[in-house]
Amino acid sequence: MTTAPPLAFLIGTWEGEGVGEYPTIETFQYREEVTFTHPGKPLLVYTQRTWAMDDGRPLHSETGYWRLGASPDRVEVMLSHPFGVVELQEGTVDGQTLRLASSTVASAATAKDIEAIERDIHVDGDELRYAVRMAAVGHVLTHHLAATLRRRRD
Amino acid sequence: MTTAPPLAFLIGTWEGEGVGEYPTIETFQYREEVTFTHPGKPLLVYTQRTWAMDDGRPLHSETGYWRLGASPDRVEVMLSHPFGVVELQEGTVDGQTLRLASSTVASAATAKDIEAIERDIHVDGDELRYAVRMAAVGHVLTHHLAATLRRRRD
Repeated sequence: MTTAPPLAFLIGTWEGEGVGEYPTIETFQYREEVTFTHPGKPLLVYTQRTWAMDDGRPLHSETGYWRLGASPDRVEVMLSHPFGVVELQEGTVDGQTLRLASSTVASAATAKDIEAIERDIHVDGDELRYAVRMAAVGHVLTHHLAATLRRRRD
Repeated sequence: MTTAPPLAFLIGTWEGEGVGEYPTIETFQYREEVTFTHPGKPLLVYTQRTWAMDDGRPLHSETGYWRLGASPDRVEVMLSHPFGVVELQEGTVDGQTLRLASSTVASAATAKDIEAIERDIHVDGDELRYAVRMAAVGHVLTHHLAATLRRRRD
């Protein structure tokens, strides 16, 4: 088998809304679309995009890969951000709950300095909820993003 | 303008063939498809896939973002690899030639140890040629990949 059953609960297209906050910015609401596809190798291809709720302008995007680590309860996530950052997340999957923390966050010369990112994800049926904490620009790990997404049924 | 003119010469879908070699592996030939798309922000979205020439099996893939750095001759590339590696490449664009070197290569717990990657890319009309050098698993920077791709006209 080339499937990755412990992560199969992520597969699909997810849509919903979230709220972003941080000590250095104004709180904002966003619309989000996330896709996890299974290309036939034991990994998931990941894309993410967000838009501002107020005027629909594109905000953020991410791409990368999710796969199991050394054991079926370990997860490795490789992420690229267009604002000049790459992120390696490692952690655990327990049922349909992922707890991830950055083992590396690297910023290009012109990018903001981000020291650490943590991501908690929980899937319940067709609902995906996540929370992101971030240590950046001199702040310790602080709540940054929370969203609730629904799996699209097409 | 939200375009990134110094990198616009990359936009398109590119197809062709390459050869991979390294002291630790058997030399192999591959077919490759690369896309650079321009999503309306000042950056390019990048996807790459390769297949073995002998039996067509999927080999590698990459996703990420390419953008200008602090000046129009500086480039920053954020890349994710499914084999557990993220890569930050920084360098220069001079006409249609890019010279990039990794400022960060980070490997997840189960990934091979890669210390450095350098990429040279040159576009001449609808032909893109690149060479990749890699320092990995104890070897200094050593030639790894070379390919010639053609821009698809659809």
